[in-house]
Amino acid sequence: MTTHSFTPKHYFSTLGTHDFVLRVADGDTIVTTTLDAGGFDADRQRVHTGVNPMTGPFFVEGAEPGDTLAVRLDILRPNRRFGWSGVQLASNVMDPADVALLPPPPGFAEGSGEWDIDIEASTATLVLPKTKLGRLSLPMRPMVGCFGVAPPGGEAISTATSAAHGGNMDYKGFEAGVTVFFPVAVSGALFFIGDGHALQGCGEVCGTGIEISFDVQFTVSVLKKTICWPRAETETHILTIGNARPLDQALQHATSEMARWLQSEYGLDWVGAHTLMGQCVEYEIANVFDPAYTVACKMSRALLARIQGES
Amino acid sequence: MTTHSFTPKHYFSTLGTHDFVLRVADGDTIVTTTLDAGGFDADRQRVHTGVNPMTGPFFVEGAEPGDTLAVRLDILRPNRRFGWSGVQLASNVMDPADVALLPPPPGFAEGSGEWDIDIEASTATLVLPKTKLGRLSLPMRPMVGCFGVAPPGGEAISTATSAAHGGNMDYKGFEAGVTVFFPVAVSGALFFIGDGHALQGCGEVCGTGIEISFDVQFTVSVLKKTICWPRAETETHILTIGNARPLDQALQHATSEMARWLQSEYGLDWVGAHTLMGQCVEYEIANVFDPAYTVACKMSRALLARIQGES
Amino acid sequence: MTTHSFTPKHYFSTLGTHDFVLRVADGDTIVTTTLDAGGFDADRQRVHTGVNPMTGPFFVEGAEPGDTLAVRLDILRPNRRFGWSGVQLASNVMDPADVALLPPPPGFAEGSGEWDIDIEASTATLVLPKTKLGRLSLPMRPMVGCFGVAPPGGEAISTATSAAHGGNMDYKGFEAGVTVFFPVAVSGALFFIGDGHALQGCGEVCGTGIEISFDVQFTVSVLKKTICWPRAETETHILTIGNARPLDQALQHATSEMARWLQSEYGLDWVGAHTLMGQCVEYEIANVFDPAYTVACKMSRALLARIQGES
Amino acid sequence: MTTHSFTPKHYFSTLGTHDFVLRVADGDTIVTTTLDAGGFDADRQRVHTGVNPMTGPFFVEGAEPGDTLAVRLDILRPNRRFGWSGVQLASNVMDPADVALLPPPPGFAEGSGEWDIDIEASTATLVLPKTKLGRLSLPMRPMVGCFGVAPPGGEAISTATSAAHGGNMDYKGFEAGVTVFFPVAVSGALFFIGDGHALQGCGEVCGTGIEISFDVQFTVSVLKKTICWPRAETETHILTIGNARPLDQALQHATSEMARWLQSEYGLDWVGAHTLMGQCVEYEIANVFDPAYTVACKMSRALLARIQGES
Repeated sequence: MTTHSFTPKHYFSTLGTHDFVLRVADGDTIVTTTLDAGGFDADRQRVHTGVNPMTGPFFVEGAEPGDTLAVRLDILRPNRRFGWSGVQLASNVMDPADVALLPPPPGFAEGSGEWDIDIEASTATLVLPKTKLGRLSLPMRPMVGCFGVAPPGGEAISTATSAAHGGNMDYKGFEAGVTVFFPVAVSGALFFIGDGHALQGCGEVCGTGIEISFDVQFTVSVLKKTICWPRAETETHILTIGNARPLDQALQHATSEMARWLQSEYGLDWVGAHTLMGQCVEYEIANVFDPAYTVACKMSRALLARIQGES
Repeated sequence: MTTHSFTPKHYFSTLGTHDFVLRVADGDTIVTTTLDAGGFDADRQRVHTGVNPMTGPFFVEGAEPGDTLAVRLDILRPNRRFGWSGVQLASNVMDPADVALLPPPPGFAEGSGEWDIDIEASTATLVLPKTKLGRLSLPMRPMVGCFGVAPPGGEAISTATSAAHGGNMDYKGFEAGVTVFFPVAVSGALFFIGDGHALQGCGEVCGTGIEISFDVQFTVSVLKKTICWPRAETETHILTIGNARPLDQALQHATSEMARWLQSEYGLDWVGAHTLMGQCVEYEIANVFDPAYTVACKMSRALLARIQGES
Repeated sequence: MTTHSFTPKHYFSTLGTHDFVLRVADGDTIVTTTLDAGGFDADRQRVHTGVNPMTGPFFVEGAEPGDTLAVRLDILRPNRRFGWSGVQLASNVMDPADVALLPPPPGFAEGSGEWDIDIEASTATLVLPKTKLGRLSLPMRPMVGCFGVAPPGGEAISTATSAAHGGNMDYKGFEAGVTVFFPVAVSGALFFIGDGHALQGCGEVCGTGIEISFDVQFTVSVLKKTICWPRAETETHILTIGNARPLDQALQHATSEMARWLQSEYGLDWVGAHTLMGQCVEYEIANVFDPAYTVACKMSRALLARIQGES
Repeated sequence: MTTHSFTPKHYFSTLGTHDFVLRVADGDTIVTTTLDAGGFDADRQRVHTGVNPMTGPFFVEGAEPGDTLAVRLDILRPNRRFGWSGVQLASNVMDPADVALLPPPPGFAEGSGEWDIDIEASTATLVLPKTKLGRLSLPMRPMVGCFGVAPPGGEAISTATSAAHGGNMDYKGFEAGVTVFFPVAVSGALFFIGDGHALQGCGEVCGTGIEISFDVQFTVSVLKKTICWPRAETETHILTIGNARPLDQALQHATSEMARWLQSEYGLDWVGAHTLMGQCVEYEIANVFDPAYTVACKMSRALLARIQGES
C-alpha cells in the first residue's frame, strides 16, 4: 500500500492505450495534480492546449480486461484562487426558439465568468461578469469532471466526451470520499484524471463548472468482477452511470446496469430488483452539454442494507 | 375563503373544456376524493373504466386565459389499505437489447404488485409478488400523479399524457404542502385532479407508483400573471416543469421556464440568471414512462432569498 | 356510391368527437373545399382563426371502433393564385449553435414567403422575399398536410400535431391518387381534412409547405380489419406512418406497423418480414417541425407482388 | 495521376492517426480489396477479428488540416459468392413493447442470413434462413458501409460508429460513381475504407447489409476548402451527412451543413438557401443501428443548375 507522489510532465486529451506514466500496485495511493479544462496549471500558466488535459495514465498491476478498477477519490482540492465558468445557458439546453432571442454566445476570452476561490473558507465568489448577482459567494463542492480508463478495441476517445470507459461525465456527485468503479479493457487499466470543478450545477448547463486546477489524491484497487458501465458508492448511495445521447438512452444504460447490480450483488431476483426500483430509484442528470449526456441512477445504501438484513 | 366538500359523481379521462362540477371563489378550499389510476374507489369498486379518472373540473371564479392558477396541495391521504403497482421495468427505460431477455410483461391482473397501506404508520408494505424483497415495508410519500387545467384551443387531452396544461406528470415532488401553478387557458381555469400514489420512485420506471384512492384537500387562487409551463413552490425550492419527449426536450422546456422566472420575479438580468443556473440548478426526472416525459428544474429558495437580500 | 358536394360553414382546429357535418355511406365520394393553414379561403378571406382549420367531420356509415377507414385522395387542387410559406429554417432543425447566429425569425405577417400558383402550368413561382433565387418557378406537387379521424378516449387533439389517428403529418407523399388508411376509434370514424400545400420539401423544415386553399375530392370506404397507425398505398409502394418525437420513436412506430402488415396481409413469417425489411425497406422523413414528427416506412409493391407470386 | 495496386497486409478497427500503408499523390487512383464486416476475405478466411476492418490508411500528399479530401468511388465489386446478413429487426428500431414479444435475437453464427451473390447477374439470392421468402433474388446495389479519414485531436474512433470524420455511416447512397468529401484533420488525411455491402435497405434495420468482401478502386484529390461534415455528389444530387444520436441531431448536422454549402458555393443568401430547402430538400435515413445514426440531406443538382443559370 504505497503512496506515490507524481508530478505530471505531459498530458493527454484522449483516453486511450497510451504509454503509462507510473506503474502502481493494487491498493496503492497516488498524490498528484491536474490542470483545469483549458490546460492552465496552479500558476495560471497554460501548459497544454487540448481540451480537458488528463494526468496519467497510471498502470495498475493486476488489472486485466474484464476486471473492475475501483478508484477512491481521497482528496480533491483546488490549488489556486482563480476559477472560470461559462455564463450563458448552452444552446442545446434551452427551447430552440429561445436561442434565437439571445445575443450570440460570448467567447471564453472576454465573456466567461471569473470566480475567486477561497480554499480556507471553502467558497467560490463571483468576480465577473458584473450582474445583479453581485459578488455572490457559494459553498465550494469540488468534483472531478473527466476521469476513467482506456477504452477497448484500440480506441482513443476525446476527453470532450464519455462512454462506458468513463471520460467527461461532468457529474457533481464525483466528489471526495466517493469510490468509482470502471470496467477494465486493457492490461493495467490505464487510469486518467483531470478537469476539476470547484462547483457545478446539475446538467453543467452553461457548459462548464467553476473550472480550476486541483491537488488530488486517490487510491486504486482491482476487483475480479465485470461491469458494463461506471458505478460508484457514496456515503449514502450506490449509483450507476449511463453516457449517451439523448438523455433517454443514458438513462437506459444506467437503469439496466442498476438492475444487473441489484441482482448480482444484492441477492435480488429480477422481479424483486424491478419492483424495488419502481418505487425507490433516484436519478440525477449529470450533464446535458457534452457530446454524450450523463445520467446517474441511484439506490439508497440504508435501504439495501435493510433489505439484505431482512432476507 | 369557503371550504367546499365535494362528492364526485362522474369522472373524466381527458383534461378539456368539460362542464364544471363545482364553481368556487378565488381563495376557496375544496375537500374531495380521487379514484386510483384504474378507476377503483375507496371500497375497491371500479366506478370508472378510463385511465387516470379525474375528479372535477372545478371552475375558479376570476381565472381568465393568460392568468395563473395556484393550487396548494393541503392534504393527500390514501383512503384504503390496498395499493397496486407494476413490477417490471418498462420496456422503454431499459437498454433495448435487454428487453428481449426478459419474460413477456405480466398483465396487471395476475402480475402486478400489491401493497398494504398502513395510514397510521404511514407505510406501504409489499404483499405480492413473492420476491426476495419479502414483505418490504417502505415509508409512504403520498403524491398526486395527474392534475392540471383545461388546455387551450378546444383540446381535450388524455390523462395518460401531459403538456403545458399539466396532466399526467407523475412527479414525486407533488406532495402535500406544495403549491403548484398552472397556465390558465379558459375562463374558470377548470381544474382536475386524480391518480394518487402512496409512493413512487423517480421516473415511474415500472409504469406506476403505488396506485391508490385518496382523500384530498386543496386551495385555489388566481394570479394575474402569465406562465408558459407548470411551476411549483416547495418548502425548499422553486421549480418548473417540462413535459415532452425525449427527456432532452422536457429539460429544455423546464430550463427555459426557470430562466424566465428568475428574470421576471427574482430581479436577475439574463446573464445573472444563466450564471446562477450554471452552478446551482438541480433537476429531477419525474417520469420516463408516459407518452410525454417530465423533468423538474429546481432552484433553492434559501439561495434566492440570500441573493435578493444582497442585491 | 353517391358523390356528395359539400360546402363547409364552420371548421375545427381539433380532431375530436364533434358533431358531424355530413353523413355518407361506405364507398361514397365527397367534393368539398379546404382553407389554408391560417384559415384563409379561396378569396384570401380569413374565415377561421385557429391553426390548420379542418373541413368535416364526415360520418361514414358502418365504420365502428376497431375498423379501418380507407380514404382515396381523388383530387387535390389549389383554388387560388396566392400561396405562402416560411422562409427560415425552424430553430429545431438546425444545429443549436447555429440558431444563435441568425437574425430573429421573421413573423409570418411581414417575413413570410409569397408564391404565385399557376394551376394550368402546375407551377409555384417565388414572389417574396427578394433573394438570389429570383422568381424561382417550381413544379407543383399538391398534398394534404393535416387529415385523419377522431381519436379514441374522448380526446380532441390539436390540428397542430399528430398521433395514431392521423392529424398534422405534413407528409409530401399524401398526394392525389394515394389511398390512406386510418384506425377507426368512434362510430362513423369522423373524418377531417384540411391544410393543403401546393408543394413541400421533406421535413417541412421551414415550418410550412406552400400553404394554400384547395378544392378536394375523396372517396371513403370501411375495412373490417384493425390497424395501429396510419397506412397508405401509392402507385408504387405500401407505407406506414409513425408520429412521435424524437424521430427515433416515429421510426419505431412506423417500422413495427410495417412488420405487422407484412405478416398479416402479405403471407410472411416474422423472420421473412424482418429479413426483407433489412435489405429493402425505405424511409421518408415527413416532418420535423410539428410537435410530433412523422416518418413514413415504405416497401415496393412490385417487390411484394413478386414475392407473393413466387410463394 | 498514377494508379496504385495495393494488397493489404493488416487492417484497423479504428480510424486514427495510424502509420500509413501507402503514400499517394493528389489525383492518384488506388486499386485494392476490403474484408467483410466480420474480417473475412475473398476466400472466406478470417484474417482480422475486429469489427469492420479497414484497408489503409492511405496518405494523400498535399492534404492538410482544414482541407477537404475528395474520394471518387470508381469501382465497388463483391469478390466472392457468399454474403451474410442479420435476419431480425434490431431492438432499437421496433416499438420497445414489441421487442419483448420476439424470441431472443439469434447469434450471427447460427442465426444469420446467407445470400448467394452472382456478380455476373448482379443479384443477391437468399439461401438461409428458410422463410416464406423462399430463394428471393434481389438486384445487387454494392455500397461501402465504413470509410473516412483520421479524426482530429489524436482520437482513434471505432469502426463501429461514425462522426464528422466519416466512419461507419452505412448509407446505401455511397455506391460506385459517387464522390465523397471528408474534412481533413491530419497531414495526409489518412483515408480508410472497408465494410462493403452487396445490398442494404434504408436504416440498416437488421443491423447489417448483405456483408461481403470487395474489390475496390477509388481516386483521391485534395480541395483547398473547409467543410464540417462529410458531403457527396451523386449523378443527381449534392448531399450532406450528419452522424449522431438521436436522429434529430443527425438531421440537424446535415441540415446546417447543407445550408452552409448552398451559401458558400451556390451563390445563395441565407434566406434564399432556407426558402429553397423548405420546399425542395430531401432526406434519407442511412442507418439507425450504429452507435451514431446517419442522415443524408439532399438537393437536386438539376434544380441547383437551373437556379445558377437564372441568377
